[in-house]
Amino acid sequence: MRLRNKPWAKDKIAAYPQYVIPDPETKRGRWRELFGHDQPLHVEIGTGKGKFITEMAKLHPDVNFIGIELYPSVLVSALDKLIESGLANVKLLNANAKDLTAFFADGEVSRIYLNFSDPWPKKRHEKRRLTYRDFLALYDRILAEDGDIHLKTDNQSFFEYSLVSLSQYGFVLASVQLDLHQSGMTDNVMTEYEEKFSAKGNRIYRCEAVRPPRRSS
Amino acid sequence: MRLRNKPWAKDKIAAYPQYVIPDPETKRGRWRELFGHDQPLHVEIGTGKGKFITEMAKLHPDVNFIGIELYPSVLVSALDKLIESGLANVKLLNANAKDLTAFFADGEVSRIYLNFSDPWPKKRHEKRRLTYRDFLALYDRILAEDGDIHLKTDNQSFFEYSLVSLSQYGFVLASVQLDLHQSGMTDNVMTEYEEKFSAKGNRIYRCEAVRPPRRSS
Repeated sequence: MRLRNKPWAKDKIAAYPQYVIPDPETKRGRWRELFGHDQPLHVEIGTGKGKFITEMAKLHPDVNFIGIELYPSVLVSALDKLIESGLANVKLLNANAKDLTAFFADGEVSRIYLNFSDPWPKKRHEKRRLTYRDFLALYDRILAEDGDIHLKTDNQSFFEYSLVSLSQYGFVLASVQLDLHQSGMTDNVMTEYEEKFSAKGNRIYRCEAVRPPRRSS
Repeated sequence: MRLRNKPWAKDKIAAYPQYVIPDPETKRGRWRELFGHDQPLHVEIGTGKGKFITEMAKLHPDVNFIGIELYPSVLVSALDKLIESGLANVKLLNANAKDLTAFFADGEVSRIYLNFSDPWPKKRHEKRRLTYRDFLALYDRILAEDGDIHLKTDNQSFFEYSLVSLSQYGFVLASVQLDLHQSGMTDNVMTEYEEKFSAKGNRIYRCEAVRPPRRSS
């Protein structure tokens, strides 16, 4: 995604602490309280401009959603959608995925969405990919016993890498679609990027992977 | 593959017992003796006309190969290639994959090749797919501790199904290629079907899956 510098972004984010939670560490293990509804928590890592998470939140009022986005200049677009919709079951974090376990207690999250993550194609950047084993270890910790990861991407190499990395970590594939928009899936919510990319006729890859059984120790 | 009826096929097969082993049950656990070389055993299930297995055998004299094919009318083409090449490290079986454990002892096989298996697209035929869990259980038994399955197919739905089925059984993906002929893989040996199909510009899917760790019991 092209990043436009928006020097005012941080101030705007700070002005809406009810939507972009300023101190997520203090909410660790207590997100259900914050939302005021004891319902499953789904986290999107790399929320971008927020189309996916706000549409999902409208469709699934029985789920609490948290969108995490590193770049303030991008997150403000998600914030605008949230202000406009007034949705009570979405919160945003301006944060880095590597700090996930500081924000969420073990087993607190039911589902993680990885949508069109940066593929970091160079081998020397492997550790930055959101399906690198160190990230999977974080997801493993915060995911519930039967929690899962839903991943979408247009990047063939990243998808190949992710299938192998998930499998080698111990995640079990529950579903794979190698051409999502031709798969007959009717409840797919598209991201901004997905709309643009799939309009060119290119493939979208998708998988669902279930968390490894908690090791008894 | 189109099957031409060849009423003479069975007689021809019977005339070459040194190539098409007539009583594979009696060789169970003793294939290394039969080949006369103590080297890994690789089994292709659904050998078809035999291009893959004979080329692989030429390239890998340090491996013993067995090709299994149900249809005599197809197997005779593989037999012809074997007669012509005189390869000592390939044997053929005119047999059904469901009887694998009658032919091979537990752990006797190092690698299984599934090349362009019949996708059996109808849900009610799922049990016939060579990556259905009951077949995976047979492979699990005959494969060695570190044994693996190498699968190629042009059928997207069958590949999606196979990735999930392998993963759910406990196999771990070591490698996935979603467009094999664009992947830079240099040592790929093509089957007859693969040559014809890829010439049309269509994708070939491929994966390698490693056997689940032997359960200690």
